[in-house]
Amino acid sequence: MGDPAGIGPEVILKAAGALGRTHDRPRLLVIGDFGAMKATAERLGHHLPQPYEWAPGLSGVSNPTDPGAPTEPRFARANRLAVLSVGRLAARSYRPGRPTVAGADAAYQSIVTGARMALAGEIDALVTAPISKEWLNRAGHRFNGHSELLADLAGVREWRMMFAGERLKLALVTVHMPLAQVADALSSARVYGTIRLLAAHLRNNFALAQPRIAVLGFNPHAGENGLFGDEERRAITPAIRRARRAGIDAFGPLAPDTAFIRQDGEFAFDAAVAMYHDQGLIALKTLEFDRAVNITLGLPFVRTSPDHGTAFAIAGAGTADPSSMIAALNYAARAARHARGGARRAA
Amino acid sequence: MGDPAGIGPEVILKAAGALGRTHDRPRLLVIGDFGAMKATAERLGHHLPQPYEWAPGLSGVSNPTDPGAPTEPRFARANRLAVLSVGRLAARSYRPGRPTVAGADAAYQSIVTGARMALAGEIDALVTAPISKEWLNRAGHRFNGHSELLADLAGVREWRMMFAGERLKLALVTVHMPLAQVADALSSARVYGTIRLLAAHLRNNFALAQPRIAVLGFNPHAGENGLFGDEERRAITPAIRRARRAGIDAFGPLAPDTAFIRQDGEFAFDAAVAMYHDQGLIALKTLEFDRAVNITLGLPFVRTSPDHGTAFAIAGAGTADPSSMIAALNYAARAARHARGGARRAA
Repeated sequence: MGDPAGIGPEVILKAAGALGRTHDRPRLLVIGDFGAMKATAERLGHHLPQPYEWAPGLSGVSNPTDPGAPTEPRFARANRLAVLSVGRLAARSYRPGRPTVAGADAAYQSIVTGARMALAGEIDALVTAPISKEWLNRAGHRFNGHSELLADLAGVREWRMMFAGERLKLALVTVHMPLAQVADALSSARVYGTIRLLAAHLRNNFALAQPRIAVLGFNPHAGENGLFGDEERRAITPAIRRARRAGIDAFGPLAPDTAFIRQDGEFAFDAAVAMYHDQGLIALKTLEFDRAVNITLGLPFVRTSPDHGTAFAIAGAGTADPSSMIAALNYAARAARHARGGARRAA
Repeated sequence: MGDPAGIGPEVILKAAGALGRTHDRPRLLVIGDFGAMKATAERLGHHLPQPYEWAPGLSGVSNPTDPGAPTEPRFARANRLAVLSVGRLAARSYRPGRPTVAGADAAYQSIVTGARMALAGEIDALVTAPISKEWLNRAGHRFNGHSELLADLAGVREWRMMFAGERLKLALVTVHMPLAQVADALSSARVYGTIRLLAAHLRNNFALAQPRIAVLGFNPHAGENGLFGDEERRAITPAIRRARRAGIDAFGPLAPDTAFIRQDGEFAFDAAVAMYHDQGLIALKTLEFDRAVNITLGLPFVRTSPDHGTAFAIAGAGTADPSSMIAALNYAARAARHARGGARRAA
């Protein structure tokens, strides 16, 4: 559910309404707070995201992280939007645009609960609504964001951030660090790890037997044969070679500025690996506006999230755009379906 | 004309043909080699870019850089594509895809001649076709490219590279250097100089009285208040403040990845300042494909060029796309018209 004072509850309800009209809608369970979800629905002027109905009896489910508490989600029927409460928030903790420590803590507990359910195989995918790093820290939880927390809960050391829009999918080698430090952070192992995780995702979750992965350079014109920087020679080219030896169809390093020019509206690759945050995200956001989905690669379960923040400033106004949450839910459902299909075929 | 073995002559002829059909077509003078132009026209299967005709008598004009040589261009009538030869190339020096030292030297002499004519006010704008850095160097001319050479000829120390497409205009603070060195190269003076030159161009050449200039950050999320890097605090924000004190409507530093998201298809600014090559060019090329125009800011005359290289590999095949050359000619004509208009009003 994300931070209850943000736009999370609103975009979840709107997205559930939109998905409810689709043929193969996923079965949804909101992990968060029933009171917050209900208040948001009432504020939006319709009590339920049609044709969903609230799953009865779930509002009283106690925190499943407590020992002995029931943890089995009750999806019941496909047209129910079940809400699993991780506690019981006071109304003052889900006032739109007024974040609180209690609300941030509930958001944290939601993530922990979701991760445990995903690890236990009780849910097929986890979609996270926005949280506030600042308020997460105020609530005593020292994590930079969802990905770090989920990797920690899953005991995973190597993970990567990936983004997907309708036209472009890409994974990032580095993310939130000063750009001046990226060159030192680039190693062949780190670039290769990104290629490997991206290829595995496309194979396992998109049934692409032999995905074509474009690997970007780091410097202008991909260094122009060492004229501008050596990161291509030192880290990127060796990683591409290693990936090819491992049977991955990786190519590059490509000149970053021309890599995203499409021929006849199409890229010549299935996904790209970008070396730093803005190299990937300038292309992605310029192409996809705000419809992109954030994916964590390397976790033992499917995890996506919309590509926007809590937007406290507009929370409660009813104007939040659910496009990215819809995309995040659809991506997660599709990826989980392929993964299940693969697991079934393998069994 | 650029390198005679590249696609320069071909895109010039095709562009002249396309522009010839427009109402307010600029008067064109090709500075280069008559033989190369004529051979290209014959190869393309039509002798002249209709409705242009060759301006007679110009093929024999000797190198105007020689003392005493006639330097006055003879535009004659608007429907003539005049060719001013800077020498007399042997046919083997304009074979498509076979660059030569003599051809590269002719390209160099063309640039020198064009710059001198522009400085003398004999032409209103200079549009340069692609040259080969490698062959320029082999011919003994040690310049990294057009911009460096033109700045040197004009005696200009502060100049910047700018790009313009149909949807986006932007200037670069740094260009061809290893990305790892950009942080050190960023100074408040260098960022301010870019804002100032861009604002002057938009005022003088686009009649924008108060252009709105977006200034990008350097780090992810523009540093998130110093959390990821200090270039925003140290260089970019002070430059923006200085620009505002100088009456320039500059704003930022903007988060680089979201700066190019358009609201209702429009940017909230007239042009942007990017800190490094790929920050600007990933957005530009992703948005504009290959229709962007390259502009040199800071020269005492208008100078544009298409945003592609000599493309030796496809020279002679007749398949070169003149879109970017057409855009470069149109941009130069428009910018020069405004500049002349401004000069006339000021007089």
